[in-house]
Amino acid sequence: MSDKSTQLLRIGLPKGSLQEPTMDLFNRAGYNIIAHSRSYRPSVDDKELEIRLLRAQEIGRYVDLGFLDCGITGRDWIAENGADVEVVADLRYSKATSLPTRWVLVVPEDSPIKTVQDLQGKRIATEAMGLTKTYLEKHGVQADIEFSWGATEVKVPELVDAIVDITETGSSLRANKLRIVDTLMESYPQFVSSKAAYLDPWKRKKMERLALLLNGALEARYKVGLKLNLPEHKLEAMLHQLPSLRRPTISHLAGGGWVAVETIIDESVVREIIPELKALGAEGIIEYPLNKVVH
Amino acid sequence: MSDKSTQLLRIGLPKGSLQEPTMDLFNRAGYNIIAHSRSYRPSVDDKELEIRLLRAQEIGRYVDLGFLDCGITGRDWIAENGADVEVVADLRYSKATSLPTRWVLVVPEDSPIKTVQDLQGKRIATEAMGLTKTYLEKHGVQADIEFSWGATEVKVPELVDAIVDITETGSSLRANKLRIVDTLMESYPQFVSSKAAYLDPWKRKKMERLALLLNGALEARYKVGLKLNLPEHKLEAMLHQLPSLRRPTISHLAGGGWVAVETIIDESVVREIIPELKALGAEGIIEYPLNKVVH
Amino acid sequence: MSDKSTQLLRIGLPKGSLQEPTMDLFNRAGYNIIAHSRSYRPSVDDKELEIRLLRAQEIGRYVDLGFLDCGITGRDWIAENGADVEVVADLRYSKATSLPTRWVLVVPEDSPIKTVQDLQGKRIATEAMGLTKTYLEKHGVQADIEFSWGATEVKVPELVDAIVDITETGSSLRANKLRIVDTLMESYPQFVSSKAAYLDPWKRKKMERLALLLNGALEARYKVGLKLNLPEHKLEAMLHQLPSLRRPTISHLAGGGWVAVETIIDESVVREIIPELKALGAEGIIEYPLNKVVH
Amino acid sequence: MSDKSTQLLRIGLPKGSLQEPTMDLFNRAGYNIIAHSRSYRPSVDDKELEIRLLRAQEIGRYVDLGFLDCGITGRDWIAENGADVEVVADLRYSKATSLPTRWVLVVPEDSPIKTVQDLQGKRIATEAMGLTKTYLEKHGVQADIEFSWGATEVKVPELVDAIVDITETGSSLRANKLRIVDTLMESYPQFVSSKAAYLDPWKRKKMERLALLLNGALEARYKVGLKLNLPEHKLEAMLHQLPSLRRPTISHLAGGGWVAVETIIDESVVREIIPELKALGAEGIIEYPLNKVVH
Amino acid sequence: MSDKSTQLLRIGLPKGSLQEPTMDLFNRAGYNIIAHSRSYRPSVDDKELEIRLLRAQEIGRYVDLGFLDCGITGRDWIAENGADVEVVADLRYSKATSLPTRWVLVVPEDSPIKTVQDLQGKRIATEAMGLTKTYLEKHGVQADIEFSWGATEVKVPELVDAIVDITETGSSLRANKLRIVDTLMESYPQFVSSKAAYLDPWKRKKMERLALLLNGALEARYKVGLKLNLPEHKLEAMLHQLPSLRRPTISHLAGGGWVAVETIIDESVVREIIPELKALGAEGIIEYPLNKVVH
Amino acid sequence: MSDKSTQLLRIGLPKGSLQEPTMDLFNRAGYNIIAHSRSYRPSVDDKELEIRLLRAQEIGRYVDLGFLDCGITGRDWIAENGADVEVVADLRYSKATSLPTRWVLVVPEDSPIKTVQDLQGKRIATEAMGLTKTYLEKHGVQADIEFSWGATEVKVPELVDAIVDITETGSSLRANKLRIVDTLMESYPQFVSSKAAYLDPWKRKKMERLALLLNGALEARYKVGLKLNLPEHKLEAMLHQLPSLRRPTISHLAGGGWVAVETIIDESVVREIIPELKALGAEGIIEYPLNKVVH
Repeated sequence: MSDKSTQLLRIGLPKGSLQEPTMDLFNRAGYNIIAHSRSYRPSVDDKELEIRLLRAQEIGRYVDLGFLDCGITGRDWIAENGADVEVVADLRYSKATSLPTRWVLVVPEDSPIKTVQDLQGKRIATEAMGLTKTYLEKHGVQADIEFSWGATEVKVPELVDAIVDITETGSSLRANKLRIVDTLMESYPQFVSSKAAYLDPWKRKKMERLALLLNGALEARYKVGLKLNLPEHKLEAMLHQLPSLRRPTISHLAGGGWVAVETIIDESVVREIIPELKALGAEGIIEYPLNKVVH
Repeated sequence: MSDKSTQLLRIGLPKGSLQEPTMDLFNRAGYNIIAHSRSYRPSVDDKELEIRLLRAQEIGRYVDLGFLDCGITGRDWIAENGADVEVVADLRYSKATSLPTRWVLVVPEDSPIKTVQDLQGKRIATEAMGLTKTYLEKHGVQADIEFSWGATEVKVPELVDAIVDITETGSSLRANKLRIVDTLMESYPQFVSSKAAYLDPWKRKKMERLALLLNGALEARYKVGLKLNLPEHKLEAMLHQLPSLRRPTISHLAGGGWVAVETIIDESVVREIIPELKALGAEGIIEYPLNKVVH
Repeated sequence: MSDKSTQLLRIGLPKGSLQEPTMDLFNRAGYNIIAHSRSYRPSVDDKELEIRLLRAQEIGRYVDLGFLDCGITGRDWIAENGADVEVVADLRYSKATSLPTRWVLVVPEDSPIKTVQDLQGKRIATEAMGLTKTYLEKHGVQADIEFSWGATEVKVPELVDAIVDITETGSSLRANKLRIVDTLMESYPQFVSSKAAYLDPWKRKKMERLALLLNGALEARYKVGLKLNLPEHKLEAMLHQLPSLRRPTISHLAGGGWVAVETIIDESVVREIIPELKALGAEGIIEYPLNKVVH
Repeated sequence: MSDKSTQLLRIGLPKGSLQEPTMDLFNRAGYNIIAHSRSYRPSVDDKELEIRLLRAQEIGRYVDLGFLDCGITGRDWIAENGADVEVVADLRYSKATSLPTRWVLVVPEDSPIKTVQDLQGKRIATEAMGLTKTYLEKHGVQADIEFSWGATEVKVPELVDAIVDITETGSSLRANKLRIVDTLMESYPQFVSSKAAYLDPWKRKKMERLALLLNGALEARYKVGLKLNLPEHKLEAMLHQLPSLRRPTISHLAGGGWVAVETIIDESVVREIIPELKALGAEGIIEYPLNKVVH
Repeated sequence: MSDKSTQLLRIGLPKGSLQEPTMDLFNRAGYNIIAHSRSYRPSVDDKELEIRLLRAQEIGRYVDLGFLDCGITGRDWIAENGADVEVVADLRYSKATSLPTRWVLVVPEDSPIKTVQDLQGKRIATEAMGLTKTYLEKHGVQADIEFSWGATEVKVPELVDAIVDITETGSSLRANKLRIVDTLMESYPQFVSSKAAYLDPWKRKKMERLALLLNGALEARYKVGLKLNLPEHKLEAMLHQLPSLRRPTISHLAGGGWVAVETIIDESVVREIIPELKALGAEGIIEYPLNKVVH
Repeated sequence: MSDKSTQLLRIGLPKGSLQEPTMDLFNRAGYNIIAHSRSYRPSVDDKELEIRLLRAQEIGRYVDLGFLDCGITGRDWIAENGADVEVVADLRYSKATSLPTRWVLVVPEDSPIKTVQDLQGKRIATEAMGLTKTYLEKHGVQADIEFSWGATEVKVPELVDAIVDITETGSSLRANKLRIVDTLMESYPQFVSSKAAYLDPWKRKKMERLALLLNGALEARYKVGLKLNLPEHKLEAMLHQLPSLRRPTISHLAGGGWVAVETIIDESVVREIIPELKALGAEGIIEYPLNKVVH
């Protein structure tokens, strides 16, 4: 029998650069979160949820310690903290693009350092000391690692020989005339649970439903609905030429000879497919937006 | 026969905190209103409409006097002014939330005042002197009521014993360590008409069509479209378990054994229903946004 | 055989007031353009496209000279520069409204100048010296034309007798107490190609597909999807009374007696049609947004 | 003997458009006021002062009632409320300019109303019902006066025949094509005291010192220091020609034949005086800014 | 005899990047200019002045034509327009720094163009077609010059071979990897008069007084007042070591042995002088700001 | 002999909340620092200075290591890092107020923790792990200290038992219902030098001159100049009653009987002194602002 106190899931969400996209994702999943001025405890229109806003760097630690049942944070910080948690779902969104973020070993463009081996005896600045230490140990390299409080990319070559920093597209690094030597880790947000919460049936079910809706909202971001009418005899050609139109719903139009086709496709292929459809004789092609897609 | 001059409906819309959501509602209803720098007379792409932007406090008065045919303003200010008007439609939207606003009698948390009776001989500040006077008379209480020009909530307890103020969620009152003693009135926007305009057949029809569209847009804010495919033998279970899926459109998919289900539901229940549908074996669940819903 | 270098289309897009709506149009057509700090070379997620951001005034010239394969710019500046280019497509969008922009001959409200003939021997300021010269020659009028570096509308009557300036709605001219004497030209954006690119089969096909998608996105801006259920016996009445519901998709609902009707219509007529449909007995009327419409 | 509780002066300062210039004036007078988020009780670095921020409209009332010892508010609102207070000092500053604000009777440019007598039986909107009533009574005119909640200037001629509104320069009225018929009152901030506080010696002295410093800071806004060297034999000519150089400090320079002149003058006459001084043979003319001037 | 209409000086001031520093300079010179929404005719608190805000490019032309008596604009645009005007005063201020602006011939860093001679037969873009033409003619070089509507610096090398553009510090050019080949002209604001106004005694005197005050305010920007006390026997050493302390005012302090020294010096040398003074034994060194300095 | 390379002083200045006041202080000291977009290396108009912008947390470390000759950073971070540096000067300015910042041990208002001894076995979050560890060791207390990545104040009591955080006025702590148990350290900016730079005569002299000017500018912030005329026979009374008028410059006015008094005093006492001076019979009291004060 579950009493009231077990029917509460305490979840940590990340402050900072991931906060806005995370709030937006919850909103599209159907959860309205209102951040108050003292933003640590936002309210949400689900009485079974209790939200805490914390730095992404710390969420893994507090889930591991059991102060939070679960949380959303980067795969990188879970590793950095060595947090012992269960992964409920991968949520591949990010701050600006849909690319994963990467932790990379970076040196000035004209540095003599070409591989990790060249770091022997050098000085490295980074916000992720744990990741960097593990990486150097794996390669049998010894170097001075110092914690960077920010603006890491300006420190080479004057203050350190190399840095380990985060990047999405690498364009900021290129603008600073820096060169990537190696990638230590790819990262993206993960929905993680404490061991204890994962074993509690009510909490686990609650987390899985939440993951289903978050993924449904995430998927819909990059998909659209497509409808069109096609001469019936072109149907086979269409299905043959356009395999990305997977499993469309096809219905026969009154009057004969034409079919209505409806499907969900990746937004990124629409610009290739519409001209092909038009060339096949399709008419009345419309594209419409989606809120959620659950397969 | 109606000549050109009778085919014009003059409507007052509220300035201030309701202006933005009102403009947005008209826009979604299909009316593009452009506010010029001298914002009293915005233009609109309907030659039969003439818009005036006025304070919500004054619209009821000018509709009653016949200077305007109709207007949208709070139910509270209609009562405060004692305006003698016809209600064309309730429009339950508000500034920030979907909650009605309330006029409440408020005192400091630690005030000895527990009921309206304790106000006898006290001093009360409010922007709504008419509402407050009526309320006190109803309860047989005599007190000094003074008009507050703003920032009413800071005046207790130093300058007055109690205030009558407006609130949506009460959170601002709690932050100021105030306590609600009683609720005088719930309010929300109303579309009201002058007596004369209501008797004019052209104006009345125009107002009713406008109300239909405004309500259609308002309704669509909280609803979404839902489509999914379901094994045919689960259809009955679905309709039984999920009564909120009212009157779905069901069509049989080619190939047999599966049905396509489409319906309109409240956005707030989607997060409950999608996991249930998934558990029933539904596939290809998509949710899409709506502009208008007219039953 | 087309090698890599021919499979690149270099397109000029306008900076300034048309930049935002142009970026937005490409985005809705499926192209994500990211402007960097040095905004001349934005990146785009299509490796076959190379974008240059230039002043609308100059794009026609550089397309004509062959430095760009194609570009989007105003019909006015193409004429002003006398650029010899091919028109791939008209794209009737603009800065603020959906109106075309116009180049107009303007004088102070109380000026004695009533027609172009009255300009004989006068002084005219304009940014479009070519258009103005052509126009005066056509009317056999001789006048001093001087290049205006901006804020043209303040120069009459103190510094010049008349101006030739651009306007969308004319409201800014009226606010400045100016009067329009004549319209020299209507303008809107055009997608234009150099003669050489137009003869290159790969480039031409690429431009035509791009035009198809841009027009699809443009069309969708002013259209919506409409669905409704109607008693079957009212179907004929509906099609008769509401001709703007062109070629709806009609399907019979299970249970008999009702049909489901779905169509795409202009957003601007929805507000007229919904009340009519309601009066005909329609139920479950919903309107939904579209991303693209390709006939 | 004055105990601790009497050594506290409670002063009301105006919120809104006068708040910023009032805070600035106190700051230049040497009082640092820090407004907190709940802005009713700002803190100040003088333990003998307790500040309350209130609407200018209400300060006179609360000083009169004795809830505040004193306050700064407009002369207009003191009159409007009929507040019975003592004037400690006039403080002639304002929101934007150094002009007094005026309450004026205003009609549309083309209104037939030419004098107050023409208002007989008309409708007037105003925020200052008391001032307007008194004014009409004085002229023996009867008219409907209605309280305006704001944007008063847009109401003529559609909703009312005339308005009584506030203006500094009249330019906003001219822009709205309105005409001033009469001036009801000139206003500027006043430092007022309750009758009781005025009789308390400690409070009165405290208020007078405060008034001295506020006036010193106010005066310095429009004055500058001027220093120059002049051939001794031109001194008489200078004093004769430039009477606004009142009572300069004159000292003889070493080396003979020249005097150093130093004085404080109105900033507005500097631009007239410097060329005259230069013409008289003055050298090394410098102008420097002042914080306070106390005669 | 000068009647009222001749006692008006019409002056053109530059809009755009020079507008703010020009308004600021007038303000410090003692003229309060208030820009209205229709910014062409700002008002000023001197009834003898009438101000017009125009593009810097056009002011020389309108002064030359006599539509304006005088104006402030760049020396460059006066030359570009070939305006035939009198220079009343040089006013060496600029947008951001105190450096003059320069028109420079610019190419990409790696361009083969090393001298103006290498431009033979090339294409050059510029906003200053007159300056560029004159410059090329002087060097006997023939090239295509095209008018650039803006963002000139992005056009090399893709669209043109070289540009003639404006720069203050050259840092923006370096950031764009461009190289300066030659300087065509140095520029700074000038106060210029029409030939006719220069011959009118009243206008000329008015302009000269205005120039005196503008220069006084300009000078004060880079100067400060300095006071200090010094042992009398160090006076000679001070005057010897610190020649930039030109002509100080020296007075003997009561008590003997010390002198008070006061002078006006360039702000830029204060940081060198104060430590020297301190080393000489100076005490009570204070530096204070100035509004105007007229020698 | 000092060659060019030794005549360069490399100084680290703090980014973040101290950046703006530090830039402002240098500016008033006579150094114009221009921050570029890549803000690590701002330029300065002194060729002997090379500035690096770094986090306050890191400056001590890099000065100690000799990568920087000197730097300005908080006394707290020097201690936290255990940086072995020389203190050139204390610079008592701060972000918002003139108060020193304090590192305080903080608990919830209703926590049972009353003294540092109560922390035995508890969990503490802080950004300053070194300071906290040293403090606990000094008191013989053992506790878990965890690094806080930010928003430390929200973590009690849910995630930790106490925090060690920074505060200026304590008002933010009070607003969060937290209680200060103890103060670990007071902090303010210090100008620190590496051991090596301190031994280099040129660098040391350069640093001392810089410190002199920074302190001169800092002092001037809180001081003003005061001038007044006084009847000669009141002079002694003035000097007796107003000891804060330390060492005024007194000169006899022509005409006899009056003296001119000039001095520099703390701005905070002016408001007390002016009314006293006025009461003594002083006239022409003026207060003027200062840029620098060097005793």
